[in-house]
Amino acid sequence: MIKIGLGQIEVVPGNPRKNKETILNAIAYAKAIRIDLLILPELCISGYMIGDLWEQPSFLSECEQIGQDIIAATEGIAVIFGNVGIDRSKHNDDGRVRKYNALFAAQNGTLVKSPNALYDFTVKTLGPNYRFFNEERHFYTLPKLAYENKCELTDLLQPLTFSFEYINGNKFQFKVGPLICEDSWDDNYMISPTKELATQVDLLVNISSSPFTLGKANKRHRLFQNQTKKLRIPLAYVNAVGIQNNGKNICTFDGQSTLYNADSHIVKCVKAYESTVVPVKLDEEPEILTVSTTNIDANTTDITPHSGIYNKTETASLFKALQYGIKKTLDYYGLKKVVIGISGGIDSAVNAALYSTIVPANDLYLVSMPSRFNSTQTKDMAAQLAKNLNAYFAICPIEDSIALTNKELNALTFTRLDDTGEKRKEIHPITALSAENIQARDRSSRILAAIAANMGGVFTCNGNKTEFSIGYATLYGDLAGFLAATADCWKYQIYALAEYMNGEIFKREVIPYKTIEVVPSAELSDNQDVTKGLGDPLQYEYHDRLLRTFIENWNRTTPEDILDAYKNNTLETLLELPHPIAHYFSTPTAFIEDLERWWNLQSGFAIAKRIQSPPLIVVSRRAYGGDLLESQLKPYYTEHYYRLKTELLK
Amino acid sequence: MIKIGLGQIEVVPGNPRKNKETILNAIAYAKAIRIDLLILPELCISGYMIGDLWEQPSFLSECEQIGQDIIAATEGIAVIFGNVGIDRSKHNDDGRVRKYNALFAAQNGTLVKSPNALYDFTVKTLGPNYRFFNEERHFYTLPKLAYENKCELTDLLQPLTFSFEYINGNKFQFKVGPLICEDSWDDNYMISPTKELATQVDLLVNISSSPFTLGKANKRHRLFQNQTKKLRIPLAYVNAVGIQNNGKNICTFDGQSTLYNADSHIVKCVKAYESTVVPVKLDEEPEILTVSTTNIDANTTDITPHSGIYNKTETASLFKALQYGIKKTLDYYGLKKVVIGISGGIDSAVNAALYSTIVPANDLYLVSMPSRFNSTQTKDMAAQLAKNLNAYFAICPIEDSIALTNKELNALTFTRLDDTGEKRKEIHPITALSAENIQARDRSSRILAAIAANMGGVFTCNGNKTEFSIGYATLYGDLAGFLAATADCWKYQIYALAEYMNGEIFKREVIPYKTIEVVPSAELSDNQDVTKGLGDPLQYEYHDRLLRTFIENWNRTTPEDILDAYKNNTLETLLELPHPIAHYFSTPTAFIEDLERWWNLQSGFAIAKRIQSPPLIVVSRRAYGGDLLESQLKPYYTEHYYRLKTELLK
Repeated sequence: MIKIGLGQIEVVPGNPRKNKETILNAIAYAKAIRIDLLILPELCISGYMIGDLWEQPSFLSECEQIGQDIIAATEGIAVIFGNVGIDRSKHNDDGRVRKYNALFAAQNGTLVKSPNALYDFTVKTLGPNYRFFNEERHFYTLPKLAYENKCELTDLLQPLTFSFEYINGNKFQFKVGPLICEDSWDDNYMISPTKELATQVDLLVNISSSPFTLGKANKRHRLFQNQTKKLRIPLAYVNAVGIQNNGKNICTFDGQSTLYNADSHIVKCVKAYESTVVPVKLDEEPEILTVSTTNIDANTTDITPHSGIYNKTETASLFKALQYGIKKTLDYYGLKKVVIGISGGIDSAVNAALYSTIVPANDLYLVSMPSRFNSTQTKDMAAQLAKNLNAYFAICPIEDSIALTNKELNALTFTRLDDTGEKRKEIHPITALSAENIQARDRSSRILAAIAANMGGVFTCNGNKTEFSIGYATLYGDLAGFLAATADCWKYQIYALAEYMNGEIFKREVIPYKTIEVVPSAELSDNQDVTKGLGDPLQYEYHDRLLRTFIENWNRTTPEDILDAYKNNTLETLLELPHPIAHYFSTPTAFIEDLERWWNLQSGFAIAKRIQSPPLIVVSRRAYGGDLLESQLKPYYTEHYYRLKTELLK
Repeated sequence: MIKIGLGQIEVVPGNPRKNKETILNAIAYAKAIRIDLLILPELCISGYMIGDLWEQPSFLSECEQIGQDIIAATEGIAVIFGNVGIDRSKHNDDGRVRKYNALFAAQNGTLVKSPNALYDFTVKTLGPNYRFFNEERHFYTLPKLAYENKCELTDLLQPLTFSFEYINGNKFQFKVGPLICEDSWDDNYMISPTKELATQVDLLVNISSSPFTLGKANKRHRLFQNQTKKLRIPLAYVNAVGIQNNGKNICTFDGQSTLYNADSHIVKCVKAYESTVVPVKLDEEPEILTVSTTNIDANTTDITPHSGIYNKTETASLFKALQYGIKKTLDYYGLKKVVIGISGGIDSAVNAALYSTIVPANDLYLVSMPSRFNSTQTKDMAAQLAKNLNAYFAICPIEDSIALTNKELNALTFTRLDDTGEKRKEIHPITALSAENIQARDRSSRILAAIAANMGGVFTCNGNKTEFSIGYATLYGDLAGFLAATADCWKYQIYALAEYMNGEIFKREVIPYKTIEVVPSAELSDNQDVTKGLGDPLQYEYHDRLLRTFIENWNRTTPEDILDAYKNNTLETLLELPHPIAHYFSTPTAFIEDLERWWNLQSGFAIAKRIQSPPLIVVSRRAYGGDLLESQLKPYYTEHYYRLKTELLK
């Protein structure tokens, strides 16, 4: 049996030179350990998430040239790799040069191609155009090519034939069915490349650049196991590792490359996030690996502060993705020193704890910036956290600065001539300065930004997805920072991370239990006094779930759907609520007022804040940023919503 | 001859209820003035740029229902309008319900459809997937539908037949060829719907939602005049007005709806940005309207400060787009009071002058925030500008606040236990506080944000495209604001706007000539002392053009192309430079050092700033924001670049 190499390499987006080096090293290593067929990821020379760099002809030529170098390096080995396929005699619909997301195969220094193929490479059949995948923007797909050439699409789906030697020196042919990422996820498309190819080949190969989201690895195992079981053909799946981004969304690529045998068993699954080439034979004994039969992120285990109850599998996976994402981000930009404002609350504590598992204590600077609204309790918790992490810690009260700003702005006099041009008008527009946002901006834009800049470091945004949803944060204040690592985590996941890190990573109380237990609060005014139990205007158990359906449901809900479900007593099911809705709201009026309050923010002013927010690390099936395209619009309620509302309030 | 109504209505994105009202009013008016066929824009119920709202089933139903209401309102008139076409029995490739960008036609309360059509509506054939157009993300196109139904695409391109009465009461049939926006821009596609339909119809109708960019109106006239001349068929083009956005990019929709007769003459062109229904007959005498034969934005007339020389047509168009965009943005969000930080420099002066043409002087607050680095000269110019505009003006020096921040941060002591846990380590990470960015953040995040918030107003970002390109601005400082109105204008266009507003709008020296003449400078340190002629590290005449080719060229250039052109003595042509390159750089070394300096920023750190920058108003053919997709990557130079560099430096 041939020896396959699962080439789960780290791909650096937009850096063909670096990727060439990685690939040539992988090929040399594969030759050294006598791998017959080395499989590398989709678009592993250019990277997948490179924005509109595809519009640079010089970048295309660079990728093409490096593709040639790789083919030349295949003496004595067979290699499959992803690269951009270019046809300069044709153009895309936008008039730019024709580009394909393509799979190249080479052996002994020459290309392996199908006898009747239109090109030297295999063209991706199914180009995804959802989430951050915009393949139609740059790549021509196989169905369009079939149309252009007036031929059947199935005629263009052809196997690749390699030639290997038995131990006795005789040769045999080995047919591979080439698939690129989405090609295997054919549920909703008009064609299934897998089915077309399966009858003609010895092995299906899927090369991917597939970012991590919670629950996706299990979903993928189920997909490929169903396919291999049905078709009785083994399949090798190879995914990249590393981080790639579209600006706002930093995706971690988790690899988890896998060989499935014809009995649909997992012969080998490469460790997540590990950059490596793993050899495996088709007839090897399968690994024992349990694949969860449910989608873990569909189920939310409840967290009550310090209960120790949370979904450990989900949280472990979440922690790993965040840790990898942060570490790779810091490494990529060469960032060493990290400054974190800590308030004693849960969000900054979880961020500080997370970073402490990556950044040496010597390079981690925690800053407490109390105002008179901060309780002794939270100030103590901030100090305790710093002590537990043994990071550098300083207290920088903001009272003097706030007082100065108050004084200066309250004294500010604007003047102009009146409209006759005769008399000078004077106004003092600011009488009672609203202090809340001034505090938040003072902390981030005045203190943290200056400290970070002067040390050549960065400061963090510690926001979560619940806050991002409703804009419960101050622009240029707590919404500022180089990275919002946890901004794709709902508040319940922040608590889960706290419990998980204390319990599994530190195995001691690093995040003070009091921080987990205290009522969540911004502490920007007397109305947010934690010592009186006053905090955020949210019931996170309910609101996390409500807001999640607005963004993460594949068919996104709106208030109309919420009222419909409320009326039909199915809201608990729709939102996966642990308690009846009456537990959270005693009357329809209270329920509807609350619904409109958050919908108005989520689909209104919060968007303005998200437009200027930092990048985040994607962990969910839908993150704010390019993953979800948002226009800055005003909140909208349908006619049906108003009818339902009237009915319910009668 | 039938009377056509060019229904150039204002479309509000994401507000079907509001659009329904506008459309019903337009229909009522059209009936009153005896229009036979009223033509309304593409997607005029939903709006075009609505992000991913297409994923909300309740929003789709709302659009569908309103479509029915509009059809019901067509008693005694024929109406063509754009709406989403939904087929709930099918799904898109992403598994969501099937959606089409569709054209609906109705007359006398019922739908007008082609006899053999698959649907009651016409499906858009060509779906653009470049710039901010992401049609494949949500809409199924006609070629895919043809493939799905195993029929010829041309069979699906069918005319719509209306029935009208002669004055004598006899009826006649009138055939219309339905086109949706991109369908007419068929240069690079496999099919030309225009050609297929032209032979079968009396009139081609193109309904569009086409945002303004400089030069596009002329390009469009040329396109349609060429088509009507060749095909000898009249064409009615109807475009929406209003503003729509994708988050970062605010597009103005300029309308300019036009009827071209079979001789290719313009019978009527509706005024730009005017929300109106204009009646026109096919046999009317054409208007006399000169269409420029060149693309105005390809040619850059040179601006030397206070020369009075600039491209007046381009600048008038630019001014109008910005003024309309700002006004509509303020109106849409109900914003009244605008706060602008003015430095005495050109960018803030142009922004203040622009806003003064929209916001009453009573609601315009100009703030000068000098530090010790600001010259008397620029301080005086700021005061002079405020006086010329007669807006509210105040001076708020930042010296005390900067001194306090310096004092606090220089005294800040971070402590931790050493790694043995025995000894307390103390460090003062900040010794000499770098003052430049502290000043910028103090101005925007401390002063302007607080003033604006406390007055219930907003403050502006006054950046230009040259600065945005290279990140020559401070995050949370001068890069902050609710809107960066001029961030899609190159520095030369900022000067042109100054000259234009003084000369054509105010007809007096509102922007002080000294502001136009002074060396552009950030005035954040002694190295930027304008009184010594020290300013920005840019030769705008050259750098505007260099940076423009990196982003605006359809095939985007990179340093490789620049060196290639430099070597071949074609750089002057490539960049459209008014002087030989030796005028700007005396040696290849200086030229290359400069090139790398700005490329490193443009394709590196400046991206991080743009991710968190405010929305801008689109005027160019390529704006930063969703128009250009950017991943945060590191600058890259191709192998060929390094070879050229070595050769040139030999």
